[in-house]
Amino acid sequence: MKNNTITSPKGFLAAGIHCGIKESGKKDIGIICCPTGAKAAAVFTTNKIVSASVTVCKKHINSTKIEAVVVNSGNANACTGETGLKNAQIMCKTAAQLIDAKANQVLVASTGIIGHQLLMQKVTAGIILAAAQLSASPKAGSDFANAIMTTDTRCKQAFKTVNIDNVKITIAGTAKGAGMIGPNMATTLSFITTDAAITKALLQKALKEAVGNSLNKLTIDGHQSTNDTVIVLASGLAGNKPITKINLQYKKFAAALAQLTTDLAKQMALDAEGATKMFTVVVKDASTRTEAAKAARAIADYALVKCAIHGNDPNWGRIICAVGSCGVKLNPKKLACSIGNITVFKNGRPVKFDPKKASKIISQKEHTITVNVGAGKFSDFCYGCDLSAEYVKINADYHT
Amino acid sequence: MKNNTITSPKGFLAAGIHCGIKESGKKDIGIICCPTGAKAAAVFTTNKIVSASVTVCKKHINSTKIEAVVVNSGNANACTGETGLKNAQIMCKTAAQLIDAKANQVLVASTGIIGHQLLMQKVTAGIILAAAQLSASPKAGSDFANAIMTTDTRCKQAFKTVNIDNVKITIAGTAKGAGMIGPNMATTLSFITTDAAITKALLQKALKEAVGNSLNKLTIDGHQSTNDTVIVLASGLAGNKPITKINLQYKKFAAALAQLTTDLAKQMALDAEGATKMFTVVVKDASTRTEAAKAARAIADYALVKCAIHGNDPNWGRIICAVGSCGVKLNPKKLACSIGNITVFKNGRPVKFDPKKASKIISQKEHTITVNVGAGKFSDFCYGCDLSAEYVKINADYHT
Repeated sequence: MKNNTITSPKGFLAAGIHCGIKESGKKDIGIICCPTGAKAAAVFTTNKIVSASVTVCKKHINSTKIEAVVVNSGNANACTGETGLKNAQIMCKTAAQLIDAKANQVLVASTGIIGHQLLMQKVTAGIILAAAQLSASPKAGSDFANAIMTTDTRCKQAFKTVNIDNVKITIAGTAKGAGMIGPNMATTLSFITTDAAITKALLQKALKEAVGNSLNKLTIDGHQSTNDTVIVLASGLAGNKPITKINLQYKKFAAALAQLTTDLAKQMALDAEGATKMFTVVVKDASTRTEAAKAARAIADYALVKCAIHGNDPNWGRIICAVGSCGVKLNPKKLACSIGNITVFKNGRPVKFDPKKASKIISQKEHTITVNVGAGKFSDFCYGCDLSAEYVKINADYHT
Repeated sequence: MKNNTITSPKGFLAAGIHCGIKESGKKDIGIICCPTGAKAAAVFTTNKIVSASVTVCKKHINSTKIEAVVVNSGNANACTGETGLKNAQIMCKTAAQLIDAKANQVLVASTGIIGHQLLMQKVTAGIILAAAQLSASPKAGSDFANAIMTTDTRCKQAFKTVNIDNVKITIAGTAKGAGMIGPNMATTLSFITTDAAITKALLQKALKEAVGNSLNKLTIDGHQSTNDTVIVLASGLAGNKPITKINLQYKKFAAALAQLTTDLAKQMALDAEGATKMFTVVVKDASTRTEAAKAARAIADYALVKCAIHGNDPNWGRIICAVGSCGVKLNPKKLACSIGNITVFKNGRPVKFDPKKASKIISQKEHTITVNVGAGKFSDFCYGCDLSAEYVKINADYHT
């Protein structure tokens, strides 16, 4: 069996078990372990209210070597005060003792409901159980991927290899969805492993760029969570000459990492709460790239656009309305819009088109909306998904 | 029969008829007429893409006297280019000829689908029919209120009297909802009549302030339409000494107008697409009033908060998450939140509360969420409504 999970890169073990945080009996504790120690990089939520796990993780990420990441789902450990902070520290300490590392060599992440204290008896027992099951098998990698899920309907995994100086480098990752996603500098929980040898600084640079063009381009409901964390661990065991500067080798690694995070972002869009499809919004000819990104996100976040896409309706009026109200510079006389390859609006005016053909494009699992604002020469994009009655049901019924 | 409609203030006639823009057979053309000429003031959408009717209305509002307002529903006349502009002008000209006024003494407004040309044969016939039915009866006022509706399930009317120097002044208004509402400087379509004698400049000032604290505080889906227009017409026939400066008389008039627009805003929230209830978000102790307003709107616009309210769930975690991610200055240690009179979060920590009692508060037709951000001494508020599966159904099925 080919291993396409996070235990695939050399040097990583993983586990995922159920300890009782989730009443459903589903897995809720996961551990990744790199016994030889990994270079680590991470990006975090920019929400001003952050979870206790993010606070602790931000401190520990400064350690030269990271030996493990411990994650729980079903409880966000956010808005939990001093007790929450102590609990996040205990999670690191417990895992550290079991794998013979220091507490600050263990990273921690949490996802789930906000404002409830973790039941630490269960969590501690869970960490002990998971540590005992650590393995490099594909099953162990998948178990971890399953243990970080909340309202996800399926686990998200991505895998990539790249040859650098004739040495095969492997990168693998997993992420959880599925609501409260509208990232800024980071998104959701995502864990990436690689056996590349690379400096901590360049690993951080590559991660920031990759996330900026993938996970950060994804909006499901425009909501940025208190727990968003993306972590990459590099064991350095692939045998490549360590990447220590921005050269061809770095660029190849960074490109592969970016493809991997894009793959994860698209999987998240397709499994967003209640979503039946995803779409890419491309905004062209904006006065700056920031403006292009702002307009793309405004369209992807616009509830009426999301509803129209859910109904397979080429309702370009709502797209134009979203662009007009988002505050970016535009030239109304040059404004244009295409759905897939069908131009529906050009030079500020509607264009006759076949609505059946346009509807067919929208009914696909993935399609692209392109808007030209005619105010400059910069482009950017955003990933979004449709808004369904199911999203409301999931989030009105998810009781505290 | 007491007249509580827009024909109640002295000097106004109205009519509302069906001309065939709406396939449903419902009313789709309305006219308000002030044969003696009215002082007029208006506020408009700040969307960069505006309808042809807004473009024409913005020009005509500068006329010293306004004799009529002509409105159609079922078609927004937006993104319709030169033809749309000509059609909006024809609407004014047609109405003007019928009531013996000049075209620039007639204001025009449209609401409905974006990007389709008006069928002018039907519209012209409709204006002729409506002009023939102009009347000061309560039925005529209600007919107008019905003629401006789109997805509204009921018409919105408000009525107010105020004594100024022992003279009774009457103010009446109507507005349409019910989606694409997230105003900025103006909202939706709303038409207000009064018999007060007041200068054009002070009428504009009073309208801007009233709208700023009522209709502009309402968000249904955070979407600002291309057609938002609020118009007030003052016939000056009440017999009061004309209000020409900011004195007690002005303040009494302005307060009454503000109460009227608040009444309309709340009616709109309660009849928002798919909404089952409304709520007020009050943000206290912000560093500026703008920051307080920004935080209040962020909470009211947050899909997960709206879903929780729909489910009667006191999910304060989502409220705190919305505040944390909206970018306003806050002191995490002073952060507090109440649902109705129940404190659920204080000094940055959850407070034990009875979730059944909190759920009962949320299940009411109206309730208030109060958030203290602990960063200063400024307050502001916002009106919102819940998000239901019905909203999605309405907007996924509303085909172009």
